Amino acid sequence: MIAYGEFRSGYSGDREDTRLVFYGLRYILETYLLRQWTLEDVEKSEKFYRTHMAPGRTAFPFPKDLFVRFIEKHDGYFPIKLEALPEGTCVNAHVPVYQITSTGEFAPLCTYLETLLTMVWYPSTVATLSRRARDVLEAAFEQSVDGGAASPLLPSRLHDFGFRGCCTVEQSVLGGTAHLLSFDGTDTLSAAYYAQFELNDGEPIGLSIPATEHSVMTSWPSERDAILNMISHFGDGIFACVMDSYDYAKALSEVVPSIAEAKVGAGGYMVLRPDSGDPVETVLAGLEAAEKVFGVDVNKKGYKVPRGCGVIQGDGINLHKLSAILAAVLQKGFSAETVAFGMGGGLLQKVNRDTLSFATKLSHVVYADGTPADIMKNPVSDAAKISFPGALAVKRVHGIPTVFPAEGGHVSPEENMLRVVYDHGPVQNDWKSFAKLRQQVAEEWTALPKAANVVSKPLADKVETTRHKKHV
Amino acid sequence: MIAYGEFRSGYSGDREDTRLVFYGLRYILETYLLRQWTLEDVEKSEKFYRTHMAPGRTAFPFPKDLFVRFIEKHDGYFPIKLEALPEGTCVNAHVPVYQITSTGEFAPLCTYLETLLTMVWYPSTVATLSRRARDVLEAAFEQSVDGGAASPLLPSRLHDFGFRGCCTVEQSVLGGTAHLLSFDGTDTLSAAYYAQFELNDGEPIGLSIPATEHSVMTSWPSERDAILNMISHFGDGIFACVMDSYDYAKALSEVVPSIAEAKVGAGGYMVLRPDSGDPVETVLAGLEAAEKVFGVDVNKKGYKVPRGCGVIQGDGINLHKLSAILAAVLQKGFSAETVAFGMGGGLLQKVNRDTLSFATKLSHVVYADGTPADIMKNPVSDAAKISFPGALAVKRVHGIPTVFPAEGGHVSPEENMLRVVYDHGPVQNDWKSFAKLRQQVAEEWTALPKAANVVSKPLADKVETTRHKKHV
Repeated sequence: MIAYGEFRSGYSGDREDTRLVFYGLRYILETYLLRQWTLEDVEKSEKFYRTHMAPGRTAFPFPKDLFVRFIEKHDGYFPIKLEALPEGTCVNAHVPVYQITSTGEFAPLCTYLETLLTMVWYPSTVATLSRRARDVLEAAFEQSVDGGAASPLLPSRLHDFGFRGCCTVEQSVLGGTAHLLSFDGTDTLSAAYYAQFELNDGEPIGLSIPATEHSVMTSWPSERDAILNMISHFGDGIFACVMDSYDYAKALSEVVPSIAEAKVGAGGYMVLRPDSGDPVETVLAGLEAAEKVFGVDVNKKGYKVPRGCGVIQGDGINLHKLSAILAAVLQKGFSAETVAFGMGGGLLQKVNRDTLSFATKLSHVVYADGTPADIMKNPVSDAAKISFPGALAVKRVHGIPTVFPAEGGHVSPEENMLRVVYDHGPVQNDWKSFAKLRQQVAEEWTALPKAANVVSKPLADKVETTRHKKHV
Repeated sequence: MIAYGEFRSGYSGDREDTRLVFYGLRYILETYLLRQWTLEDVEKSEKFYRTHMAPGRTAFPFPKDLFVRFIEKHDGYFPIKLEALPEGTCVNAHVPVYQITSTGEFAPLCTYLETLLTMVWYPSTVATLSRRARDVLEAAFEQSVDGGAASPLLPSRLHDFGFRGCCTVEQSVLGGTAHLLSFDGTDTLSAAYYAQFELNDGEPIGLSIPATEHSVMTSWPSERDAILNMISHFGDGIFACVMDSYDYAKALSEVVPSIAEAKVGAGGYMVLRPDSGDPVETVLAGLEAAEKVFGVDVNKKGYKVPRGCGVIQGDGINLHKLSAILAAVLQKGFSAETVAFGMGGGLLQKVNRDTLSFATKLSHVVYADGTPADIMKNPVSDAAKISFPGALAVKRVHGIPTVFPAEGGHVSPEENMLRVVYDHGPVQNDWKSFAKLRQQVAEEWTALPKAANVVSKPLADKVETTRHKKHV
């Protein structure tokens, strides 16, 4: 039996930009697939299935014999072959990102790991969201920042605030590293640590700046004292202060002027953080206060840059708000470099399997009598849920990853972008360093057309043939 | 220093029903807080913080000395005291669910674990969502099912389909067990296993039925063959078949009649599963087909119950759709018992920290000179983000958990619902079995008023005093 996984739509159903970043299968593979089953595991499972019963039944079906046999035959490794696109590959929707093959007595186990493998939707979706946010920032930088999208400031403009909004630490590592493929700003330290030490040979991947949260501001006798303390410790570098503990407008009009001399004396860069109210208004108010208190320079593109002071908006940010705020900032004549963004739940939690419509579907069966059959799901009630029949391969056509039938000589083994990453046990995988993954995402994303027909002629023909089979 | 965690709103901002189920702190406590730090951990952290640097700085601030000291002094246990409501407690919004106290040299570490503890938002939010869904089902059962809300069918009416829509397996365990507090139907086997063997002494908590997915339907030569195979294996019990692999309408009008004789002969109960198209329409179409093919009985409340056949809707279900479908089903004269629901991403993933607006906030500081101060966040730009000042306690007033200042003799230690669950190391915790938690949630939820003023007079007075402090 053969099954494959695919993202069936662009981000949030976007038809104009169907690109996505495939990322995170390595973690699933190393965490779950490389774990060897033992007879003790099988006994535990059996005990569970015997009691997880359908009402009126004696036991939930569980193919114990197959588990025992693969433990003997494959040293406890789950008996499938898994092919996948390389980590960090950028493709348009509908390109299979992995393909599972099971054969012989173990054929029935083909989709047994579907649930675990399907979870690759999450890191891939965050990686795609983060990269789309980078597109928005790059456009604003091109318009208003000296150096444009190549400005060294850009990678820190979207900071990951999402750790506490995650459901689990494991999630924060997956989503947080996905974000780090396109940016370097992060307070999700679990992910920064993991990317650096587990995926990048100890070389740093993320960065952050000293910043106050409300508890810091409110535990000082006054906001002024809290800020002066920050200046005394970090005033010669970049530091951020949250400004809405009591009254954001008053903090801008009274507190900021009162610390201006100390701040300017220290020589560093202060970031003002509104954290409630309308994000567009509070960001503009922050920039206007910065201009008034510290003065502005005008850059070569004609946009204002307050001296040594900017704003970070970290409340209520999503792709839409990010665009709206940048548009308003530029419209008011400020450069995009003057505002950074923190994205929390919007980055790491407010996504789901439907965001890029991920699914794993069966595509091929060889029956007990030896008859092969290409199969597909093809619901008339939702054409977008159609799946491809038969074994699949992916190769670049004019640079665009395109889907072909695996048979018929359309794709040579060398051309096939679906590489074997597991085969009834570990295989040699030359995982790229995280720094190289980053580079790959940047290059492939920009090279890929926003939308493309990824179905090759031979596959389209096969779909037509298969969909007209009789099913009743 | 003292900080506390609270849910600041009802589900999705609901002002009429602000109840919530507090659940999941035990997992965080056992997984993270009971883990002893070692000097090796500190060295790894230091190595990381030295390189996770702010631009232009040499190192990210990290209080290494405090970590080394608590490893020596507290055997590696993090040096805080944690009080919390018991697992499964139902409260209205704004009742503190945990309170952290740190003292002496370790005071600065008070909110160091905020990120981890804050993650209790997730299991609590899913538990609350699931319980709210139960309210909707109970009302429909009262109206249309013999036995009403006490019907043994009710706990299986909302089935957890969410495993594959989770970001990680760990999340599926947390969210999946949260759902099991109010229902017993689940295909999130990770959670069913965990609840049974880790939280309930091996006694079963969840159940499921044999069911086909699309790959099963499409791998048979026809849908008819696939269903006949299900009948031959499971036809004397309950089993489900997904019906939209090709054409749902045709499957109802042609395939179901063609298997009717075999199905009736086997004697069991068949569940039809639409999986695409408009959920209200496809559920009604399924029930009408069931009525036509198998006939109906009319129950004592005057609602139709098709014989040995019903529908499960597992695509696109959320609280709103659940209500809409049940309303339509009853309106067409069918009993609520005839339709079950599967909730996947809607149950386990499409929630976030804002759904119940969870936050941890600092409330009290004793300064280096010994001066104590009650502090609060009180942004004029978002009144809902106000936090309580001072150490807090919770006691029932007319049965309603209500917040008091900890000092002043308002709440005796025995009355205080915030119990010490950790104190610079493990303390004796008498965790209830999962079965008992279930019972507790059912009882407390129905006993609690939907909305209540949870701020006691003494605390309200203290808020007034504290909010008028000068902060500039």
